Amino acid sequence: MAYTTKKYILFGGDYNPNQWDEATLRQDMIYFREAKINTVVLPVFSWAKLEPSEGQYNFGWLDHILDVLEENGIGYILATPTGAQPAWMSRKYPEILPVDIEGRKRTHGMRVFFCYNSEKYRERAAAIAAAMAQRYRNRKGLEGWHVANEYGTSCYCENCQKKFRDWLKRRYGTIENLNARWGTEFWGRTYYSFEEVMLPTKLNDDCQFFPACELDYQRFKTDSTIACFENEAKILKAATPDLPVYTNISGYIKKLDQFKMVPCMDVAGWDNYPSPQDPRSLPALKLDIMRAARDGESFYVAEQSPAQQNWQPYNKLKTPGEMRRIAYQGLAHGGDSSLFFQMRQSRYGQEKMHGAIIGRAGTDTTRTFREAMQLGRELEQLGARFVGGRTKAKIGILFDWDNWNAMELCSGPSRDKDYLKEVLHLYEPFYYKNVPVDVLKYTSDFSEYRVILAPCLYMLKDNIAERLNRFVKEGGTLVTGYLSGYADENDRCEFGAYPGPLRKAAGIWVEETDGLFPDEKVSVCTSEGITVQADFLCDVIHTEGADPIAEYTSNFYAGTPAATCNHYGKGKTYYLATKFGRDFLDVLAERILRDAGLAPLFPTEGDVELSCREKEGICTYFAINFGRERACVDLADKSYTELLTGRELTGNTPIEPGDVLVFGRKSNSEGEEV
Amino acid sequence: MAYTTKKYILFGGDYNPNQWDEATLRQDMIYFREAKINTVVLPVFSWAKLEPSEGQYNFGWLDHILDVLEENGIGYILATPTGAQPAWMSRKYPEILPVDIEGRKRTHGMRVFFCYNSEKYRERAAAIAAAMAQRYRNRKGLEGWHVANEYGTSCYCENCQKKFRDWLKRRYGTIENLNARWGTEFWGRTYYSFEEVMLPTKLNDDCQFFPACELDYQRFKTDSTIACFENEAKILKAATPDLPVYTNISGYIKKLDQFKMVPCMDVAGWDNYPSPQDPRSLPALKLDIMRAARDGESFYVAEQSPAQQNWQPYNKLKTPGEMRRIAYQGLAHGGDSSLFFQMRQSRYGQEKMHGAIIGRAGTDTTRTFREAMQLGRELEQLGARFVGGRTKAKIGILFDWDNWNAMELCSGPSRDKDYLKEVLHLYEPFYYKNVPVDVLKYTSDFSEYRVILAPCLYMLKDNIAERLNRFVKEGGTLVTGYLSGYADENDRCEFGAYPGPLRKAAGIWVEETDGLFPDEKVSVCTSEGITVQADFLCDVIHTEGADPIAEYTSNFYAGTPAATCNHYGKGKTYYLATKFGRDFLDVLAERILRDAGLAPLFPTEGDVELSCREKEGICTYFAINFGRERACVDLADKSYTELLTGRELTGNTPIEPGDVLVFGRKSNSEGEEV
Amino acid sequence: MAYTTKKYILFGGDYNPNQWDEATLRQDMIYFREAKINTVVLPVFSWAKLEPSEGQYNFGWLDHILDVLEENGIGYILATPTGAQPAWMSRKYPEILPVDIEGRKRTHGMRVFFCYNSEKYRERAAAIAAAMAQRYRNRKGLEGWHVANEYGTSCYCENCQKKFRDWLKRRYGTIENLNARWGTEFWGRTYYSFEEVMLPTKLNDDCQFFPACELDYQRFKTDSTIACFENEAKILKAATPDLPVYTNISGYIKKLDQFKMVPCMDVAGWDNYPSPQDPRSLPALKLDIMRAARDGESFYVAEQSPAQQNWQPYNKLKTPGEMRRIAYQGLAHGGDSSLFFQMRQSRYGQEKMHGAIIGRAGTDTTRTFREAMQLGRELEQLGARFVGGRTKAKIGILFDWDNWNAMELCSGPSRDKDYLKEVLHLYEPFYYKNVPVDVLKYTSDFSEYRVILAPCLYMLKDNIAERLNRFVKEGGTLVTGYLSGYADENDRCEFGAYPGPLRKAAGIWVEETDGLFPDEKVSVCTSEGITVQADFLCDVIHTEGADPIAEYTSNFYAGTPAATCNHYGKGKTYYLATKFGRDFLDVLAERILRDAGLAPLFPTEGDVELSCREKEGICTYFAINFGRERACVDLADKSYTELLTGRELTGNTPIEPGDVLVFGRKSNSEGEEV
Repeated sequence: MAYTTKKYILFGGDYNPNQWDEATLRQDMIYFREAKINTVVLPVFSWAKLEPSEGQYNFGWLDHILDVLEENGIGYILATPTGAQPAWMSRKYPEILPVDIEGRKRTHGMRVFFCYNSEKYRERAAAIAAAMAQRYRNRKGLEGWHVANEYGTSCYCENCQKKFRDWLKRRYGTIENLNARWGTEFWGRTYYSFEEVMLPTKLNDDCQFFPACELDYQRFKTDSTIACFENEAKILKAATPDLPVYTNISGYIKKLDQFKMVPCMDVAGWDNYPSPQDPRSLPALKLDIMRAARDGESFYVAEQSPAQQNWQPYNKLKTPGEMRRIAYQGLAHGGDSSLFFQMRQSRYGQEKMHGAIIGRAGTDTTRTFREAMQLGRELEQLGARFVGGRTKAKIGILFDWDNWNAMELCSGPSRDKDYLKEVLHLYEPFYYKNVPVDVLKYTSDFSEYRVILAPCLYMLKDNIAERLNRFVKEGGTLVTGYLSGYADENDRCEFGAYPGPLRKAAGIWVEETDGLFPDEKVSVCTSEGITVQADFLCDVIHTEGADPIAEYTSNFYAGTPAATCNHYGKGKTYYLATKFGRDFLDVLAERILRDAGLAPLFPTEGDVELSCREKEGICTYFAINFGRERACVDLADKSYTELLTGRELTGNTPIEPGDVLVFGRKSNSEGEEV
Repeated sequence: MAYTTKKYILFGGDYNPNQWDEATLRQDMIYFREAKINTVVLPVFSWAKLEPSEGQYNFGWLDHILDVLEENGIGYILATPTGAQPAWMSRKYPEILPVDIEGRKRTHGMRVFFCYNSEKYRERAAAIAAAMAQRYRNRKGLEGWHVANEYGTSCYCENCQKKFRDWLKRRYGTIENLNARWGTEFWGRTYYSFEEVMLPTKLNDDCQFFPACELDYQRFKTDSTIACFENEAKILKAATPDLPVYTNISGYIKKLDQFKMVPCMDVAGWDNYPSPQDPRSLPALKLDIMRAARDGESFYVAEQSPAQQNWQPYNKLKTPGEMRRIAYQGLAHGGDSSLFFQMRQSRYGQEKMHGAIIGRAGTDTTRTFREAMQLGRELEQLGARFVGGRTKAKIGILFDWDNWNAMELCSGPSRDKDYLKEVLHLYEPFYYKNVPVDVLKYTSDFSEYRVILAPCLYMLKDNIAERLNRFVKEGGTLVTGYLSGYADENDRCEFGAYPGPLRKAAGIWVEETDGLFPDEKVSVCTSEGITVQADFLCDVIHTEGADPIAEYTSNFYAGTPAATCNHYGKGKTYYLATKFGRDFLDVLAERILRDAGLAPLFPTEGDVELSCREKEGICTYFAINFGRERACVDLADKSYTELLTGRELTGNTPIEPGDVLVFGRKSNSEGEEV
Repeated sequence: MAYTTKKYILFGGDYNPNQWDEATLRQDMIYFREAKINTVVLPVFSWAKLEPSEGQYNFGWLDHILDVLEENGIGYILATPTGAQPAWMSRKYPEILPVDIEGRKRTHGMRVFFCYNSEKYRERAAAIAAAMAQRYRNRKGLEGWHVANEYGTSCYCENCQKKFRDWLKRRYGTIENLNARWGTEFWGRTYYSFEEVMLPTKLNDDCQFFPACELDYQRFKTDSTIACFENEAKILKAATPDLPVYTNISGYIKKLDQFKMVPCMDVAGWDNYPSPQDPRSLPALKLDIMRAARDGESFYVAEQSPAQQNWQPYNKLKTPGEMRRIAYQGLAHGGDSSLFFQMRQSRYGQEKMHGAIIGRAGTDTTRTFREAMQLGRELEQLGARFVGGRTKAKIGILFDWDNWNAMELCSGPSRDKDYLKEVLHLYEPFYYKNVPVDVLKYTSDFSEYRVILAPCLYMLKDNIAERLNRFVKEGGTLVTGYLSGYADENDRCEFGAYPGPLRKAAGIWVEETDGLFPDEKVSVCTSEGITVQADFLCDVIHTEGADPIAEYTSNFYAGTPAATCNHYGKGKTYYLATKFGRDFLDVLAERILRDAGLAPLFPTEGDVELSCREKEGICTYFAINFGRERACVDLADKSYTELLTGRELTGNTPIEPGDVLVFGRKSNSEGEEV
């Protein structure tokens, strides 16, 4: 069961009226109604205010705010305030304060700084969650529960040390097994007792130099954080079984394995904070990752900036329409909400310069507020048409947190290994063609896919190699390349050439891999006789059945293959031995799409992103013009309704610079297209 | 009462003959007399030598040195040696050793590393100060007291933690008041007891992420350091009420609020160490800040390098005449001394490569020594003519340490916020025109000024907005701009548009502020139709009565005002919405000067700085040619005496490359101009 | 007595078959024989496997490996595994774990992290060394002992603190003497007891700001590490007096004073890991340093990469032939071995991407393995012809670790002081001319040399100034320059001009030294009227008898000498006041060689290194073409045998791109040239 609301798109976001007076609260309500805001999230971080001393709760102020919200028809997601324990609690129970990677006990400060394994923290967090559930479960405005905030702090305290050993015991059973799995013969790391295992920190440099240990610490951290989340979630769930419980995931998604974490929530909630310099493909990919976390289910965009941020080095203003484009991109890729940090700008603290729907000027005459009003009107109009809808894709791209950690921990051949960048690089040629791409877990069902992209498939686990081999044999197309097929889940390599168990499917073997300098390029000549450039890494490979589709023309390995295509069973495998630029990859993507009989949703011209969500057979298309020129989408002889204006669209349809078109066939009251 | 000596310009500096033998000491005396050195400062840092064990003093060696100095007619400023506690003392009383911002207890080493709140440090420092005062108070060579050295170490020990809480209790009375003032509603920081407040360090990141707390820590640090200084100063003062007591301020002036610290001294003592790359405007501004610290009183240049430094990354030699130019710049801006670090180069330790009047070669034939001799001769000739004299300016520029800290702690819109750079940027158009500028405190008397520059007036306090509004109403010209009018003294913002209470005087309001990338520029067209560039930040503003004098021509806010002028009462306010280059500011400065009826002291050509000090009605002019070309100052029909040569000057008077002219009317024995 | 093996060149290297199974071990033997591998080094780091609990040894697995090696005729050097103590030992005896320079106690992890002064570490290390010696002393395959691994960790624990004080007591006798020698008058550092002396760390910044203390800490560290090495070495030595005992020195040679450390070994063992960007002169110089460490004796290349490394930021593949060229360079400069890290690539851990003779692919068909086979065949063919042979040079270049530390610790005039770079810079003009250069210690016998290069002779000790003066007086040529003649062994300077006691020999004195910005250049005109550029530092000097051979033509010291030549006694001294480029130095080197009657071994053309080793009167020449073009060596009318092919060489002999020629006269069975 998916818990995303089915009735409307959530529009609103974080709201902290405890920071201002009653008159301002009342003024906010007027503005909220003006902007069609339907949902706020609160009271994130207010633990100290809610629980002035142990077990003594002060809910009166919150009750009042909820009353006012309900009077004004504004729904709310209640946040447990456990993202920041009260100062009195840190003082009374210092065990709650974490120890950092340099072995330093933290003092109370900031937020999200607690030991995720602290029993005392969990006891107090459960207590306030229970008190809130008890008090507010039957409130009519309640739409769901948001737990804590952006988990992800690492802790290296004595308690975590102990629990890490326990976790290892459960995972490996015996110390001999751990020794075998961690490869402790190297550098004489053999253990004779779990008590000898130390947390990987900067005090022993094992966080950098003992990948097997660090990998397990990261797994342990995710598992412990899940337990920390579930400690509260199970209480909330028991109180309100029909309401979704989730936590918001940091925009920087690497801290925790979200493919393990999200399935424990009712819905993924993600904070979408692209940097001004990011290409639009990056939030698109991350949104697709969030959609993958619950196997294609829609999710919440839990936070985004309505205006500028404050914590970037250089905080650019959002340009006119940018908020709206980003909001629609979130919906187009599977979001059922458009929640913002924040509803009103705060008066103090670290984030006081962060933008808000209502700026500190406190008027509704600002550009940001006017744009919010437009968006609110539009979302109300769109109703529940695509809420809960899904994306249909025939191309999948593999993604995995263990692989991410393992590949980047691996020392050599280049320090510039950036997994997310590599995944993005192979995603882009398809993304920019407006061919839908699904992010896939190693364990996803591959049966609906025609093409699987597997960049830097460094770590093999969950039978992924066997599953990919079968996928190709049965007619699929696999694209993989350098840094693939190296290690098992403990970062152990097997003897034998790379790409290991994918060698047969790829029809090549890798003799060695050159790590290029940052500004070094190699020349490559494609089978069409075109010279292109590549960089980063260069596998020197030998074919065993594969056909070269490009050859190095520089360095001592000139003349050897830089990319190959191998027929294997009914399918084929492309192997990219080096990091090609977009020019080569665009041509390759066209070839792959043609071969696989795949095409863009519609032909487009200009800098336009086109996506589709399908709900109960009804398609909704989102065409977003990110460019400064007019773009168009060619609907040919099909005709659709533009859902915001009601006008009919057919043929080559223009989209104004910066504008968004949402269109589909009309549906009748039974939800059937007409 | 000002304590600067009235009889002559102090010429000399730091002297550590305990590092060498008697013969060298005797040789030094010959050189000192050759160079007309009249004052040395000693024995900085010699605590361990003076107090071999607790309460046992060893003054004999110092007595002898003072005898020799007196025999040779050299005066001295006695330094308490408390800038470096003895190793035995750190060992016996570890509480004296500070804890750093990362929570690490320091071990004994370096210098100026003691807890400024340590009772034991203060007890021992008072004891040796008393012993020295007792022993040397009636010495004929004694000219004043120098306490410790360049205070400014931060400490985060348990004792400081406790004293910080006490300081907060005194400041805020109740924890509720502290909560309100610090805005602890944000991120759930509410306190229920002062005991819960932690020092802002890297152990809680509050030094960066909790501006309200860090701001108060900086105030506490200044207040504690003042107490540490006064602990010794009051003893010295009681012993020798007629002699000045001061400490030397680090060239990097940010460590402590000198507008609080200096008024507790009898005279400001500042260490002037420009870097080779600094424009000459930077030491000029810092000298003007020092002059402001005691409301226009003259001050001591307590240290400067006669030759190269050793602690710069790259230590350029001073070029021929550079020492003299810098020495005169110090005098021109209000200095009554030209003291150098150091008289003779040391033989060992961290600073052994730092230049000295007498280099390690030990001869008087070096370029540096010859230049010192010239300077000594000249200063003797100038006598007390301008000692104690003042600068008359009609333009003031606001400067404040709290504002400095608050603006730079503020996260967003750009990380490149550098207050001193911003102040310098607005100072320069006037400085380079040789129009005298006074630095003003928020609390300075504004009545003598026609123009006040208020760059980045981020923090409002001490009624500054009200005072500036009145200043403009009564006919003054105010120049302000981006990042102004934001916060109160606790870094709290009010709801309402910026520049807050200056909005009416400025006749504009700020809707949002763009943070540009480091190499990003915007184009601006002035009302004269000239296109210029700007960078850093761009306020998007709306006029409410002000006239645009420049408009953005790029970015989405093209067409909106980039600079405005508003008539308010009898005066006007210029608002600079973005960071203009010098081209625009130079034109603006001309307009402002013309409107205000202000002019340079004299017209000049070339790279020449022209200043004037007035003492009892007698003016002394300093014209310093910093360039490699001949410059000139146009005296028109006035005639003056060049004070070093006695020659008469009138009309357009040349100044040779690198040369200095000091001139004024002759004065008679009653000190009246003739 | 030199212990380098006299029978053949050691070929092989590190081998860790405990990381794989029996079948792989057996396969390795086949490959070893194929590649003529004769020596492996093991079991480095296997302490935890060998000693599962205190005093309980598990040697069975090692016995078996040694049996297999012996069966296959492979010799071995046994490594004590004491480079990485077992985890149980760190847990049982936490005193073994070091404290780092930031005062942090390390937890168990990595390798080579133990306190070199720990009595418990030494006790346990001695015990296992004794057990291994006892067990394996009579093994026929045993060729020598390798102790621990790349010593060099610093420790700042309480035990080291105590031992450092003891070491100082022994060195200085009284605290008064220490005060005098350390110059504690500066910054009031006077001590009254050795108990007051603190280790120089980042907790007191004395590691950077108290050079006298830090210099002695570095000496103490070397002395302590020698004791740590000898703790094991004396046991091994006693058991097998005829076998060499050594430890391998890190490629980054700065950590310990190898001129003290190596004489305590039987042979220097050095790990040769040039970076891809290094010019070939850098490993050449370092090899020459290793040769100097035992006064010209041959040494072991203990490790080198057969293929790419993994711990460089960017790990370039070795190009075809590169392994062979580097191997021959090692032999040409005095190596008696060509040992590699590693024989087979490991399956896990930090270095699993580091190349090996047998890659993880596990085949003998790789380029690396084929190149290893070629090298193995060739080395077998060369036999013992030059094993133990020596290099004859008439040019020496001074090198010293104390000087290295002192010069770089010295604050000013430039932070870019890099001693090794300076030594390399003066080495290169002679090296690239293929004129043999010996590295000299301060205490080396100078009598055989005609030219001594003394770049940055900052520290004077061991009568070096007096010895150099005598060297020049008696007809030698000395080349020195900036930063010379400054300090004594405690970094104390004397009064008087630089270059101090070399002033007379140089015939100049230095008035001051300009520290240039990184991209700043000065122009210099040579006495031949050619304009060249220089950078880094510029001494402003005065001649006292010397003849200028170049003059500055820019900056205010234009017209003063930039380089001089002074006749002194029967010899001459060149003084280089600034850092000239190679253009000037090449011309100067030619002049010096001509004057001294020295010449290259043979004239060469192209990018070829030519070296010669002489053994019992028999010369072996090594010509290595590092370039991509054909090079040649002009043998004129002499004729030699190419030792790998047997072909006769005479006249202008070509060397193919990347190729190596090893040649000499044939020798008869008595070892006489025929």
